[in-house]
Amino acid sequence: MTREECLARDRADPLAGLAARFAPGAEGTLYFDANSVGATPRAAPAAMAAMLEQWRHLRRRGWSESDWLAAPRRLGDKLAPVIGAALGQVVVGDTTSVNLFKALAAALAMRPDRRKVVGEAAAFPTDLYVAERLIAGLGGRELVLAPDGADPAALIDGDTAVLYLSHVDYRTARMHDLKALTARAQAVGALVIWDLSHSAGAVAIGLDAANADFAVGCGYKYLCGGPGAPAYIYAAHRHHDAIRPLLAGWMGHARTFDFPLAYEPAPGIGRFQVGTPAVLAHAVMETALDLWAGIDLHAAFAKHAALGDLVVTLANGIDGIGLASPSDARERGGFVALRHPNAASIVAALGAAGVVASHRPPDSIRFGLSPLYHRHVEVFDAMTRLGAIMRDGAWRDPQFAKGSKI
Amino acid sequence: MTREECLARDRADPLAGLAARFAPGAEGTLYFDANSVGATPRAAPAAMAAMLEQWRHLRRRGWSESDWLAAPRRLGDKLAPVIGAALGQVVVGDTTSVNLFKALAAALAMRPDRRKVVGEAAAFPTDLYVAERLIAGLGGRELVLAPDGADPAALIDGDTAVLYLSHVDYRTARMHDLKALTARAQAVGALVIWDLSHSAGAVAIGLDAANADFAVGCGYKYLCGGPGAPAYIYAAHRHHDAIRPLLAGWMGHARTFDFPLAYEPAPGIGRFQVGTPAVLAHAVMETALDLWAGIDLHAAFAKHAALGDLVVTLANGIDGIGLASPSDARERGGFVALRHPNAASIVAALGAAGVVASHRPPDSIRFGLSPLYHRHVEVFDAMTRLGAIMRDGAWRDPQFAKGSKI
Repeated sequence: MTREECLARDRADPLAGLAARFAPGAEGTLYFDANSVGATPRAAPAAMAAMLEQWRHLRRRGWSESDWLAAPRRLGDKLAPVIGAALGQVVVGDTTSVNLFKALAAALAMRPDRRKVVGEAAAFPTDLYVAERLIAGLGGRELVLAPDGADPAALIDGDTAVLYLSHVDYRTARMHDLKALTARAQAVGALVIWDLSHSAGAVAIGLDAANADFAVGCGYKYLCGGPGAPAYIYAAHRHHDAIRPLLAGWMGHARTFDFPLAYEPAPGIGRFQVGTPAVLAHAVMETALDLWAGIDLHAAFAKHAALGDLVVTLANGIDGIGLASPSDARERGGFVALRHPNAASIVAALGAAGVVASHRPPDSIRFGLSPLYHRHVEVFDAMTRLGAIMRDGAWRDPQFAKGSKI
Repeated sequence: MTREECLARDRADPLAGLAARFAPGAEGTLYFDANSVGATPRAAPAAMAAMLEQWRHLRRRGWSESDWLAAPRRLGDKLAPVIGAALGQVVVGDTTSVNLFKALAAALAMRPDRRKVVGEAAAFPTDLYVAERLIAGLGGRELVLAPDGADPAALIDGDTAVLYLSHVDYRTARMHDLKALTARAQAVGALVIWDLSHSAGAVAIGLDAANADFAVGCGYKYLCGGPGAPAYIYAAHRHHDAIRPLLAGWMGHARTFDFPLAYEPAPGIGRFQVGTPAVLAHAVMETALDLWAGIDLHAAFAKHAALGDLVVTLANGIDGIGLASPSDARERGGFVALRHPNAASIVAALGAAGVVASHRPPDSIRFGLSPLYHRHVEVFDAMTRLGAIMRDGAWRDPQFAKGSKI
């Protein structure tokens, strides 16, 4: 694969025009951190400026005269198609951890007589902290983790209340078969919670088609909502009436502005709202979600797979670099992880060479790929720089010895 | 009290210069909604633009090369003096409802053998929803509410785990004696949680001086952090080591970026952090908290009391308008509530006359006052317009019949 061939692919890319809807990064820098902080929608600064103006002149009238309070549901409906969900099943707000907590608490309450929450050591750590602390506080339940590399499905049984998984391994991009595992758990009466942080906005998910129960995810990775953007939570329509939130607040009340003393859940997915929406952050997140309107999702996910395959192909030609991710795109999430015992130093050397990647212990070098703004030639150039670093041993320079923990 | 006298007071106001640090609202509009959405710091748009720029060119490097992740603690320390707290006891993030949940869950775990949570019907409704749902989920506890107007202290006994109160009644501005009630509850071994949403940034609170246990509050009212701004949580130093969060996440972990599987609480107040901070929202919130640096807090709270007294005095001369708030400023929170059976229509008529106030059932007309940006002459002009509306009966116009629910 030559640079010219990559340029030719970019010229033929039906989504190539989307890149212009993002603000350019620093000159000469190649960003492969879509798995950490997605690019800035070009519309974000103007949307934020407009929202700051609304604040300035509307003040409290924004609650009633603008659409501030409708943002969580409106943005949820804009996100829904991207994750394969029909409308009315997603709200945008809070953080991924808080949404995991909401989903797990709701699911446990729906399976009061079952003791086990089945997860895995490969989950993103915050997912485990949420479950560990919630289960400790509720009592009478047990968090059972499949060891790294083992199949969590083997732990599911009739005493399993919830199967609780990260869709994608944050170190290797290995992606679970969401549909198969959902069916497997449901076959014994368990509910399933998916953390989509490393798949939504990059690969096809098809929540409704998989008969998913609950899902959550991050707003600032492939979804490009800005650092610390509002996260989201999905619950299938069929569960809405049964959900009794443990973490409840006025925005999830059926009659918020009547100010009743007793809690009464809002109809539908709205009951997963808690406090006042982060109006400013939602304004930016909306510009990011608006980028998906009218996109051919099939083409987007095919492009993402092609970009990932290109990383795999080009990395294969670099001495000393292995592949931590599955080679088959259908088994990968949003990034491709290469492998090297000195991954931390190599990531630091890449940074000095203008390539933003990231490291996760023990040995992974992650390249996060967005179907919205990445070009094939950028992958080619990044892999060329990686090849040079490996050939000339630049990563051995003591300045790179510490790597970067984050 | 004449308009000239008000202007003279403004000329003598040592804090008068602060008003210029806020962006002006709509021409001719008088905003008395500091209890709902505070004014826009003039520095906010530039700070947000700078943060959007950081996002654009740093992307994921912002996590390590900028101060994004330190914002919750840094902003907490900027807020701490405003609520009478020593440093290291406040983190800024999440919503008020979520922080109430964190505080109540932590306090209940610290009093495992006591059954009662004592609150009151006068609490802000979301506070009650949080408690109702958490208690229902945990089991074995009971939420006991003092009826409207009754003294919640009368319900405290040796079986009380937590006294759980809004510092200020959101309808009348009646403010509890935080120090006395804290002492009363602690005398029988209970912990106390205060919701400071309607007092912080307006009146002196003195959490440490009152030996407070836990407190939370809203970032977008008197604190001017923008609609849906990050909220905050306070816990006294002496409790930190005992706090085992029910709602835990990676940002509250002792070694977040080592990615351990097991939860280990961060030292100190940091364990109340959960998910990734809302970086963009924090950037704006910080401009608001920076306004308090170097301010004479005693002068600020004295000015707030004087503004409130002026509302009371001038309203007293308007036929048909009563006072819902205490007449003594020491018993009032951040706003002054007037009273009229047709409050909703009067608030709507005020809006049409360029005065932004707000209504709460059954009969309150709220004027939220900020010591940072309000001038005495604005109070005079607003009360003059209210007087005219009452004299000419403009509020009886059918267009105002519906009022505004929010």
